[in-house]
Amino acid sequence: MTANPPVVSPVRLRAEDRPGQPPVSPGLIEFYEGFEKALLVPLWTEVGALMPLSPQSKAQPHRWDWQTLLELAARAGELVPVGRGGERRAIALANPSLGGKPYASPTLWAAIQYLMPGEDAPEHRHTQNAFRFVVEGEGVWTVVERDPVPMRRGDFLPQAGWNWHAHHNGARQPMAWIDGLDIPFQYEVEAQFFTPGRDQLTEAEHATPDRSRSQRLWGHPGVAPVSQLGETAGSPLLCYRWADTDAALADQLALEKEGHPGVVEPGHALVRYTNPTNGEDVLPTIRAQFHRVAAGTETAPRRETGSSVYQVFDGSGRITVGEFSWSVTRGDLFVVPSWLPFSARSEASGSDSDSGALDLFQFSDAPIFTKLSLFRADSAERP
Amino acid sequence: MTANPPVVSPVRLRAEDRPGQPPVSPGLIEFYEGFEKALLVPLWTEVGALMPLSPQSKAQPHRWDWQTLLELAARAGELVPVGRGGERRAIALANPSLGGKPYASPTLWAAIQYLMPGEDAPEHRHTQNAFRFVVEGEGVWTVVERDPVPMRRGDFLPQAGWNWHAHHNGARQPMAWIDGLDIPFQYEVEAQFFTPGRDQLTEAEHATPDRSRSQRLWGHPGVAPVSQLGETAGSPLLCYRWADTDAALADQLALEKEGHPGVVEPGHALVRYTNPTNGEDVLPTIRAQFHRVAAGTETAPRRETGSSVYQVFDGSGRITVGEFSWSVTRGDLFVVPSWLPFSARSEASGSDSDSGALDLFQFSDAPIFTKLSLFRADSAERP
Amino acid sequence: MTANPPVVSPVRLRAEDRPGQPPVSPGLIEFYEGFEKALLVPLWTEVGALMPLSPQSKAQPHRWDWQTLLELAARAGELVPVGRGGERRAIALANPSLGGKPYASPTLWAAIQYLMPGEDAPEHRHTQNAFRFVVEGEGVWTVVERDPVPMRRGDFLPQAGWNWHAHHNGARQPMAWIDGLDIPFQYEVEAQFFTPGRDQLTEAEHATPDRSRSQRLWGHPGVAPVSQLGETAGSPLLCYRWADTDAALADQLALEKEGHPGVVEPGHALVRYTNPTNGEDVLPTIRAQFHRVAAGTETAPRRETGSSVYQVFDGSGRITVGEFSWSVTRGDLFVVPSWLPFSARSEASGSDSDSGALDLFQFSDAPIFTKLSLFRADSAERP
Amino acid sequence: MTANPPVVSPVRLRAEDRPGQPPVSPGLIEFYEGFEKALLVPLWTEVGALMPLSPQSKAQPHRWDWQTLLELAARAGELVPVGRGGERRAIALANPSLGGKPYASPTLWAAIQYLMPGEDAPEHRHTQNAFRFVVEGEGVWTVVERDPVPMRRGDFLPQAGWNWHAHHNGARQPMAWIDGLDIPFQYEVEAQFFTPGRDQLTEAEHATPDRSRSQRLWGHPGVAPVSQLGETAGSPLLCYRWADTDAALADQLALEKEGHPGVVEPGHALVRYTNPTNGEDVLPTIRAQFHRVAAGTETAPRRETGSSVYQVFDGSGRITVGEFSWSVTRGDLFVVPSWLPFSARSEASGSDSDSGALDLFQFSDAPIFTKLSLFRADSAERP
Repeated sequence: MTANPPVVSPVRLRAEDRPGQPPVSPGLIEFYEGFEKALLVPLWTEVGALMPLSPQSKAQPHRWDWQTLLELAARAGELVPVGRGGERRAIALANPSLGGKPYASPTLWAAIQYLMPGEDAPEHRHTQNAFRFVVEGEGVWTVVERDPVPMRRGDFLPQAGWNWHAHHNGARQPMAWIDGLDIPFQYEVEAQFFTPGRDQLTEAEHATPDRSRSQRLWGHPGVAPVSQLGETAGSPLLCYRWADTDAALADQLALEKEGHPGVVEPGHALVRYTNPTNGEDVLPTIRAQFHRVAAGTETAPRRETGSSVYQVFDGSGRITVGEFSWSVTRGDLFVVPSWLPFSARSEASGSDSDSGALDLFQFSDAPIFTKLSLFRADSAERP
Repeated sequence: MTANPPVVSPVRLRAEDRPGQPPVSPGLIEFYEGFEKALLVPLWTEVGALMPLSPQSKAQPHRWDWQTLLELAARAGELVPVGRGGERRAIALANPSLGGKPYASPTLWAAIQYLMPGEDAPEHRHTQNAFRFVVEGEGVWTVVERDPVPMRRGDFLPQAGWNWHAHHNGARQPMAWIDGLDIPFQYEVEAQFFTPGRDQLTEAEHATPDRSRSQRLWGHPGVAPVSQLGETAGSPLLCYRWADTDAALADQLALEKEGHPGVVEPGHALVRYTNPTNGEDVLPTIRAQFHRVAAGTETAPRRETGSSVYQVFDGSGRITVGEFSWSVTRGDLFVVPSWLPFSARSEASGSDSDSGALDLFQFSDAPIFTKLSLFRADSAERP
Repeated sequence: MTANPPVVSPVRLRAEDRPGQPPVSPGLIEFYEGFEKALLVPLWTEVGALMPLSPQSKAQPHRWDWQTLLELAARAGELVPVGRGGERRAIALANPSLGGKPYASPTLWAAIQYLMPGEDAPEHRHTQNAFRFVVEGEGVWTVVERDPVPMRRGDFLPQAGWNWHAHHNGARQPMAWIDGLDIPFQYEVEAQFFTPGRDQLTEAEHATPDRSRSQRLWGHPGVAPVSQLGETAGSPLLCYRWADTDAALADQLALEKEGHPGVVEPGHALVRYTNPTNGEDVLPTIRAQFHRVAAGTETAPRRETGSSVYQVFDGSGRITVGEFSWSVTRGDLFVVPSWLPFSARSEASGSDSDSGALDLFQFSDAPIFTKLSLFRADSAERP
Repeated sequence: MTANPPVVSPVRLRAEDRPGQPPVSPGLIEFYEGFEKALLVPLWTEVGALMPLSPQSKAQPHRWDWQTLLELAARAGELVPVGRGGERRAIALANPSLGGKPYASPTLWAAIQYLMPGEDAPEHRHTQNAFRFVVEGEGVWTVVERDPVPMRRGDFLPQAGWNWHAHHNGARQPMAWIDGLDIPFQYEVEAQFFTPGRDQLTEAEHATPDRSRSQRLWGHPGVAPVSQLGETAGSPLLCYRWADTDAALADQLALEKEGHPGVVEPGHALVRYTNPTNGEDVLPTIRAQFHRVAAGTETAPRRETGSSVYQVFDGSGRITVGEFSWSVTRGDLFVVPSWLPFSARSEASGSDSDSGALDLFQFSDAPIFTKLSLFRADSAERP
């Protein structure tokens, strides 16, 4: 046991001659040295940066090109084995203004994961909440609590913290998808636990069913299994299938055409993935939504506290985030930092098969804000 | 304004010589007359009946034969017009021990409703919570808040209090279904409001869409419309379709065969209809569930506080409720009073098309008990 | 086991020639006989009474005179022993329009209880939620879960269902107080369980502490015992003392004089007893409140769904409930049925010590309505 | 508008030869350079640090000496004016392992604030949740939403985000107290808004009442003002007075001596400040508690996710946090990082007036963890 050991104080204070600051004098400088020695920092030198009039994100808007990501992931498939220790062949977006850390935003992790034919990613569990979203391909099963869950284009697979999980690729080609997690958030607030699991899946877990057991229990709209009732922090439904999401979006736009409520604004269908046990967000710290911006539509700019990562699922368009603006196409990812206005415009690609709509998958840290009474948006009418 | 007007006291007390009672004497008799005059009743003469060791239902178990109901309803189709004042051609179950009142149980109303081809039942709204369940036929649309909702065999249509609603039969044949409401409960506690609406539906409301707008907004599993988010006391999903319920039940029995959790007990699949905005019961005062008892299975006896009404949806079987037991077949209705043990046994009918399973639709007053911390069941492991 | 036994049907229907009814004919009469035989009742003959435009209470307003009650209770002290079987020397208000049943309203029980010096009322527990309120005297302890809780003028003692409880009078004089319970409600919905306990209290339970253990754990404003945390359906605080209630009411009227918010309307202070574990009503089915109507003030008429019983705690005044109006003074009890307008006017009694305010204790069944989404009041701005 | 501007990538990756890593090769090095250029970071190089087996706090345990703090604050009283821009004469604890930032822990701010006689700290509001705790002195009023709230030794004053507030010292001597806020948390997740208010308080706000209006409305145990009902995210009670906290702690220890439940462990009384509108934590992101460790007692080591700051309110003792251990006395502050075991031992000071108990005020970020389903403690039996 030790008392406070000798510490080289990291505190550095500068007496500065500016409004709101005490007059600079030798006494003040000496006084500040006392603060440094005593491990103290005054509010009056820090208040502007620490307590801004509105959120000033440490992150910046940025777009990542899907093709580049995919190529690097494929190269990783050759160079990097998947196994215990490294745990996953996952490559994370690093926001350019967050010092090289693997953080898409101050709270969110977004990565491309890649699995070669026949490969398994080893089982583990962690308190970090996670999901998978599939922009292309199929053939991988995520095995959650020994329940193999198929992954196909458009599927969204939430996985609340502390569930055992592994992946296996049962197909003859590689498969890539994106993982979203609250790793940065849990790292910052220091909540995280991790346990490695079994190194091998059983034969039964290598099964490749068309529907998971979770799907069979919870995938029927409004019809819940009595044996499994009870509120859970994360969704017991482990796969939200593309067919359902697509139909929900199409229905909203069709209702709009018929003159009925449904869309959040003209030409903008929006659905939220929810936990069937409580109707709330699908994960304790992560909100997931899907946007369809009809051909020729631009959404109204909207600001929210908290950050989002988007992936273009289909179509092409132009994204504007604060002072940034990019053209995007299938697979591209981009990040929207806290309180920067975001809007999206669909752009027909010209191909015959193209509906002209822009389909965007979004995930954000909104539940952290809503549950702590910190959520704000500047278009208050939309939940 | 009047002060207490002269009242002929309805209080009648008898001094009786039994354990726990004061000794009978002229003084006691005179004393009890004072109670009668002052509109008072002692606890000590009433406690046994008023505060029994466990619920002693005023209702009794009873079964109603569907064919009898259907014939009387068809006859009503000839004799009784549908219109303002009578409001609905609905015929309610009257529990034989509830004094001839139209109460299936002390809290629940259950009726067969019947609509002739081309008929409309006029629009109204009321605080009573209601649902429709369809054991056979199709062709009627319930128009809830101007949204026409189709009704077909196996569909369950909840409709929370204070929604405007009407019905129209767009088919060439009559249609019957059952209505369940909390009329007795609201009558006893005196909560109820009622407002007549328009006498005619518009042409748009006479539309006969395959899916309601509610279905298009809320009928996608776990995928919620952001423009409509927010907890509501009753479900915004106005039709739970048979295909979904049937699949959920079949999945539970299949999972059981594969050795996985799902059924509530061997051979007994059970689902609950839930409100997608909060995962709770589909109506504020009414729970609705669907049972499938596999061929050759008998469920374990179970008691609950509160009462239920069941309708046989398919198959044949034997029902036991306390000291009562009946054979039942498609369409038959029966009531299970508070705290009487209930069990069901499936009986194959011998027809080729028969799976041998017994399908039972159930509704109960359980939310009244759960929300007021009064719910009990003697098989505690099932929610 | 028996099938439906032969039943003498209690159903009696009359074909009547009035608006909204089918034309009377021999066929209709025969048809109605079929209903009687089949234990069925049509909606169209009942809808007006069963589903009125607004609640039409089966109860009527009524006032009971405290002196009469007290005299009868004192006489009961001579004639009626307290013990197992009769359980309590309690005398209940019987609403004159509820058929002589011991119901103050369709949901509420209100009784005067009376204990002679040295007497014990035996231990029992029941699912019925209960409270005691003391309009005069002291010297009795209610022993809840073996914790002796003192009872003194102005104290309110809630006691959620299924707690063991007994009473003992440790004073040299008799003591009376009122009991409020949800006996009628639980009788109607059939939720109730009852278990007799020990016939004798221990010496330790005959202790007469100034504060209960519950008080010492939970009686400090906003300061909760960590070892006891967790939401409970009823309040863990077993006594709300008069000094606190009185101060809260006085503070509201003083704030009003200083121009600050606090009262619910001019001259009308109102507090609600709440459960410190969740801030909600103090009992799952019973709301308890205390009103202070300043000298010379009349409250605005207010209607609510559900019924209330009031007791005058201090002062004199005039009460108006629908078409009824009474002068009331200390101890008088009266009932306000569902949806009848209630108002109270204070009347100075002329004595020197009189502040002129009218102090009213109220309890109601409001939580039944709020939790089931059935609560309405016509002055919506007040919670 | 700009597309992704040229970025100097901050990503730096090193190919290393260690278990769980891919074999180092020229190809791997080149491959990692591709990551750097594309703003990507692999999981496999980071997983151990980012996703540890259990929380490894960035903060370290540290103790700050109250006398040093007080002297520096007094010196600030001479050198540093209070006014708009600097906002407050507050001096924050800077955890020695957090890089010189004014963070006591990764989520919590703790500061000493100091006000000279007659001074006002200007009005502002911010989304950061805050409280004041007074270890000595009196004479300052915090004016929250224009309600002057007195501050005295032992008082705890929570103040939820977005309330206007100012302070004024109405005494003839300076006064110091501690402020706790969630500034680091809101800075990291980027939720924060700030608005300056009026520069001057009115005469009415300079009033020095003995009780705040908040106290008069909400300071009566379990007795809530009906006009103010409704759940609020932060407590409407703006001052939890020492007399109540002290009595609650004394009661727990007295109950323990009598053989009754109350303490969390032998000799260890513990209370939590709660929001009377919902029974939950007093602020959306901050838990506040008060410990009394009886003379001669050592508490069992306990670990929790999340961090705490403690201040010694009275007595002397020895604190152990992980590998650190300090003697502490009145006013000393110390920080307990996430998942380090904490225990406290009381040490009699030898003075006659000393009860020998160690009184500790504690605040933590626990609500962030409980609301996001991330809370864990290794002594699970205590809430």
